[in-house]
Amino acid sequence: MTTLDESTRNGVDTATLFATLDAVKAAPEAAKFQFRARNEWISGTHSRGTIDGFYGVGEERTHERSFHFDADHPAVLVGRDNGPTPVEYVLHALATCLTAGLANIAAARGIRLTEVRSTVSGDIDLNGILGLNPEVRNGYQNITVRFTVKGDAPAEKLRQLVEQSRARSAVYDVITNRVPVTIEVSTD
Amino acid sequence: MTTLDESTRNGVDTATLFATLDAVKAAPEAAKFQFRARNEWISGTHSRGTIDGFYGVGEERTHERSFHFDADHPAVLVGRDNGPTPVEYVLHALATCLTAGLANIAAARGIRLTEVRSTVSGDIDLNGILGLNPEVRNGYQNITVRFTVKGDAPAEKLRQLVEQSRARSAVYDVITNRVPVTIEVSTD
Repeated sequence: MTTLDESTRNGVDTATLFATLDAVKAAPEAAKFQFRARNEWISGTHSRGTIDGFYGVGEERTHERSFHFDADHPAVLVGRDNGPTPVEYVLHALATCLTAGLANIAAARGIRLTEVRSTVSGDIDLNGILGLNPEVRNGYQNITVRFTVKGDAPAEKLRQLVEQSRARSAVYDVITNRVPVTIEVSTD
Repeated sequence: MTTLDESTRNGVDTATLFATLDAVKAAPEAAKFQFRARNEWISGTHSRGTIDGFYGVGEERTHERSFHFDADHPAVLVGRDNGPTPVEYVLHALATCLTAGLANIAAARGIRLTEVRSTVSGDIDLNGILGLNPEVRNGYQNITVRFTVKGDAPAEKLRQLVEQSRARSAVYDVITNRVPVTIEVSTD
């Protein structure tokens, strides 16, 4: 019999985590997921996203509630600042992905974390998206993640958690490697 | 003298948009921005992001308010569903970027939009991030954007708006091309 302390570490239910790994090993098709975000334009650069349904483990599923997020440009970029810019959401996605992985990996390795903070910064030259300089790319030129990680393990072990999280991060892979994007347009 | 109808189209202040373009043409350094997202781990796969400060047009700036967003995994992925998954935020970022660009470009071209909706979906095989199959990548295998665009222009002109937005989208560039990411870790 395991106690709560043994099976739950860093808020991660490690028993369920390992059971999930075993289940996917036995039925690899269960790991095929499709995630989705819907969006509705409001006005100008302001739009509202909804995240609710997804497909996984063989069936359509929904989050426990619908999540809604506004995006906009700040006034200095001719918007009304009703939400973060799209590119800021990318940095947020990277931070949350690396952090979730870190907590899971620490739990699996028996390391108790006490603090994980990060700041992700991305440098971008808007001469690209403004169409003013064809030699400047549209997106970030580089992204830097600065982590502070504390827990009951030597510094080297804590650093290895970040490295393993990077090696298994979906968002890190999306940003540092290419994902093909197809765009379809209906005007009906 | 321009009337509101002439200078504001689709909620885009086109006079300010063109003035901004002229200002950046005259001083290209103004277009160097740095965006940031901070993150604090809560428990398990749950973390909270904060987006407030950024650098641009030569100085440190802040959004009109701080934006906070939780991320988590759903129960089926051993989380507590306190927010969307990190990879869903990536899809949201892509939808909002393409949509903001579309509205700006339509305004610049004198096209009035009446409706812009989109759904972005991404297929991912979690055998990658679970470390169960080294041949499966961690991130999305492909992403599809489905737009519905309506406005006072022929279908072909509306489709061209989407194409031009794609060609100038920062998030599309980040996802379909590589961005180098540097990770630094402090354990103090």
